[in-house]
Amino acid sequence: MRMRNKPWAMDFLSSNEDIVDVESRYAGKIDEFFVKKQPLHIEVGTGMGTFITELASRNPDINYAGIELDKNVMIRVLEKVRELELENVRLLLLDANKIDEYFNEDEVDRVYLNFSDPWPKNRHEKRRLTFSSFLDQYKLILEKDGELHFKTDNRGLFEYSLVSLNQFGMDFHEVILNLHEDEPEDNIRTEYEEKFSAKGNLIYRIKASF
Amino acid sequence: MRMRNKPWAMDFLSSNEDIVDVESRYAGKIDEFFVKKQPLHIEVGTGMGTFITELASRNPDINYAGIELDKNVMIRVLEKVRELELENVRLLLLDANKIDEYFNEDEVDRVYLNFSDPWPKNRHEKRRLTFSSFLDQYKLILEKDGELHFKTDNRGLFEYSLVSLNQFGMDFHEVILNLHEDEPEDNIRTEYEEKFSAKGNLIYRIKASF
Ligand SMILES: C[S@@+](CC[C@H](N)C(=O)[O-])C[C@H]1O[C@@H](n2cnc3c(N)ncnc32)[C@H](O)[C@@H]1O
Ligand SMILES: C[S@@+](CC[C@H](N)C(=O)[O-])C[C@H]1O[C@@H](n2cnc3c(N)ncnc32)[C@H](O)[C@@H]1O
Repeated sequence: MRMRNKPWAMDFLSSNEDIVDVESRYAGKIDEFFVKKQPLHIEVGTGMGTFITELASRNPDINYAGIELDKNVMIRVLEKVRELELENVRLLLLDANKIDEYFNEDEVDRVYLNFSDPWPKNRHEKRRLTFSSFLDQYKLILEKDGELHFKTDNRGLFEYSLVSLNQFGMDFHEVILNLHEDEPEDNIRTEYEEKFSAKGNLIYRIKASF
Repeated sequence: MRMRNKPWAMDFLSSNEDIVDVESRYAGKIDEFFVKKQPLHIEVGTGMGTFITELASRNPDINYAGIELDKNVMIRVLEKVRELELENVRLLLLDANKIDEYFNEDEVDRVYLNFSDPWPKNRHEKRRLTFSSFLDQYKLILEKDGELHFKTDNRGLFEYSLVSLNQFGMDFHEVILNLHEDEPEDNIRTEYEEKFSAKGNLIYRIKASF
């Protein structure tokens, strides 16, 4: 997700600190950031936030933390959260490789990864959000039965992730290799999902737990 | 693989007992069936045998046992083995659910499944060759590092098998979701593979061990 750099982005995010945590003020105590204490699901790499805001609208009894490291992109999510007046979404300007510092052990009930950057070159394997070092972190912060839900249109990344999750010892609950044929009613399309599906790409999904 | 019934099929197979084992004469001692003692790979559901005969021609230092329960189909494999004068292929007229009675523990080095019948209905799950009861058998007869190689164009069966193999605790070595894009040089196309690929179907493959 590349967006034009907005010089005012940081100031703008900081001035919305009821919704965005820019400097990890709520690390270790994210419950205090939300209006209600209820189950916590997170999305890593929200992009412009279509997915997390629609999901949160449908599920008011779940808290959603959207993690995104690009401040220019984050602004778009913030705008949606304000517009929809969502009490159950909070945004963290954070690098995914820091989530084990931000969340407590077993604090998270579900992790969503949608159309994560594929990093196709072998030497960039460690940057893929399904690389073992990231799985270590998800495992730590997820409660025992917590699930990882991962969607992508990128064949190489999905092939890699099937092997990576399996070799990590994760339990597969469901694998779908063409999500938009008989699309599940509860599927919420992300921005990338709309774009790549329109190009004719297949959409893959896996649900798994540790 | 449906073929016209040949009333003479059984007699014909029986009269070729140097190549076909019709009544499990070599159960527990398959080494005696082959000319040389060397590693043993098996294919379950050979169909007409294009795959196993080509594979065996390329790898004279491996013994191949082709398992097929349809005697009319088996005749076609037999003809190929004769024509190519393959010393390292032997054929077993056998139901896959009996392979733990035929082979000894740890005797087999690799199991191939190609385009196995999909049995799409839930109530037929137990008939799929990647159902847990079949995995139990492969595990028993495979030596410790032995691999299962499975190809299919059937999306439902492949999705099912990814979950089934994972839940059985198998280690994935490789998953490919479009085998004919950058087709590996050593890939040997089966009859079904040619047919369904020509129709535009994707070909899936997994390599895994227990
Ligand atoms: C390809 S986009 C997909 C966006 C959105 N999930 C979708 O499906 O439309 C990937 C997003 O993940 C964000 N991202 C990439 N690496 C990240 C990381 N290490 N931590 C947090 N966000 C990351 C990028 O800034 C980008 O917005
Ligand atoms: C769909 S065909 C595929 C044939 C071939 N492998 C190919 O890829 O072209 C499946 C084959 O498996 C055989 N088969 C099915 N169930 C079997 C079983 N339980 N034991 C042995 N063979 C079986 C069928 O008779 C048929 O020839």
